[in-house]
Amino acid sequence: MNFNDELKEKKEMAESVIERYLPEETGFCRELAQAVNYSMRAGGKRLRPILMMETYRMFGGESQIIAPFMAAMEMIHTSSLIHDDLPAIDNDEYRRGMKTTHAVFGEALGVLSGDALLNYAYETASKAFSMEPDQPRVGKAFTILTSKTGIYGMLGGQSVDVTNEGKEISREMLDYIYENKTSALIESAMMVGAVLAGASEEEVAQIESIGKKVGLAFQIRDDILDVTSTMEELGKPVFSDEKNHKVTYVTLQGLEQASRDVERISAEAVEELEKFPQKNEFLIRLVKELVYRKN
Amino acid sequence: MNFNDELKEKKEMAESVIERYLPEETGFCRELAQAVNYSMRAGGKRLRPILMMETYRMFGGESQIIAPFMAAMEMIHTSSLIHDDLPAIDNDEYRRGMKTTHAVFGEALGVLSGDALLNYAYETASKAFSMEPDQPRVGKAFTILTSKTGIYGMLGGQSVDVTNEGKEISREMLDYIYENKTSALIESAMMVGAVLAGASEEEVAQIESIGKKVGLAFQIRDDILDVTSTMEELGKPVFSDEKNHKVTYVTLQGLEQASRDVERISAEAVEELEKFPQKNEFLIRLVKELVYRKN
Repeated sequence: MNFNDELKEKKEMAESVIERYLPEETGFCRELAQAVNYSMRAGGKRLRPILMMETYRMFGGESQIIAPFMAAMEMIHTSSLIHDDLPAIDNDEYRRGMKTTHAVFGEALGVLSGDALLNYAYETASKAFSMEPDQPRVGKAFTILTSKTGIYGMLGGQSVDVTNEGKEISREMLDYIYENKTSALIESAMMVGAVLAGASEEEVAQIESIGKKVGLAFQIRDDILDVTSTMEELGKPVFSDEKNHKVTYVTLQGLEQASRDVERISAEAVEELEKFPQKNEFLIRLVKELVYRKN
Repeated sequence: MNFNDELKEKKEMAESVIERYLPEETGFCRELAQAVNYSMRAGGKRLRPILMMETYRMFGGESQIIAPFMAAMEMIHTSSLIHDDLPAIDNDEYRRGMKTTHAVFGEALGVLSGDALLNYAYETASKAFSMEPDQPRVGKAFTILTSKTGIYGMLGGQSVDVTNEGKEISREMLDYIYENKTSALIESAMMVGAVLAGASEEEVAQIESIGKKVGLAFQIRDDILDVTSTMEELGKPVFSDEKNHKVTYVTLQGLEQASRDVERISAEAVEELEKFPQKNEFLIRLVKELVYRKN
């Protein structure tokens, strides 16, 4: 099977896992569940659950224990998108060509559905406690998931990004934002996969380092696409960083340097992945392809 | 020691536990940590962590394992207050005589600090995994904490409350709102205390029923105070429900019936608590006093 067909299959598999864990739209809280499900079904690459699954498989993981964590991972990511789009933050009415959650359900449910989805991610991951005989493994996965999402992870990075929009920022601060806002969840996805499959502490640390590079390359590629792509290709407005006076890797280092760096960082991640005796060829190819993606 | 002195001591103990787990205000994400800590230090009864601790003690719990869960409980409650106060929901500039979090730190950090605090609650509770040799107990506590907070708990109740403000609502819907918006976290606090102390499933179910009644009595007492108290006593504006055209237990059933019901429901909770062979006199007294509180 060629890579694109395989990726499509993996994505459909991730979506069917996610679908299995979505809340039912019944009872008094129906509208909240609808808002949550609307945001979860609005598309996306499902990159984080796929990375989690593939890292899990790489370390020999074979059980269903990974499923609630895959769904939880995508719920955390989506909850952050719902709140990013709020008028108080980016004020976006559209994402991936669809109305954003608050634009459909109102601002109050925009806030509450983001909260509900973040919480539901942990509620979903909790289901693993009744599946897994090796409870300490699930406990460790929880610790990673919560810390990479929080103040010292994605939300910390997001807060620094938001409060510094339109300001001059240093390369040091930009690195902090990229490492947390973008890399943290990708590290988390890959680390949780490794931990649940029983990888050693040393292996989990290597996976964290790889995840950081994958996230960084992903974010720089995003910055590059914002200045080189068309709205049609990208599915969202281009030159949005410039319009928002946003300092990015491209504005700080220039397009040429950014393009060289994204290839170098991605090649490093691939090299580290290839060192593992239990190679996952699909995962390696996926990391390589992220550098050349068009959206 | 008299009850009020003992309550004061318990509250100070809960506050010192909470303080131990607050994030450090350093690094790039300092402002987010400041917003989180500002909201956590803005006072409050600390009722939920006290109820958790006392239920834990009632079932013979004696270890430090309860500490991160007590802090997590108050973080979850406080995160919900930060978001309730946002312009998109209640639009409150003051709470307990202090500026609300978004009023001090801006609306974007109002959203993000509520997210960060909800997430940090689970990050904090995760610390129990490295403390507790009996991991399944921690896993069970997690499952309760996440489900009582979420779509089928507090956030569900909050969403129905918010989307129905100013509308006629049925007694059935009011019961749903009270059971979820208010009782769910109180049930959660008491159930987590019981589970961590090793209570049986039957005992945990009894505690859930007691927590539901304590929460209901607490909320009806809130409604009563809104129409019988003064701003000075209450520390917040009175007649706010009327001003917001809010249907409450008092507007639906009348003040007299509400007063009778709150005493009856509280007495039932006390009676159930007294049935346990391992009686906690302080906990019983606390539940009794909640009916007569002035703020």
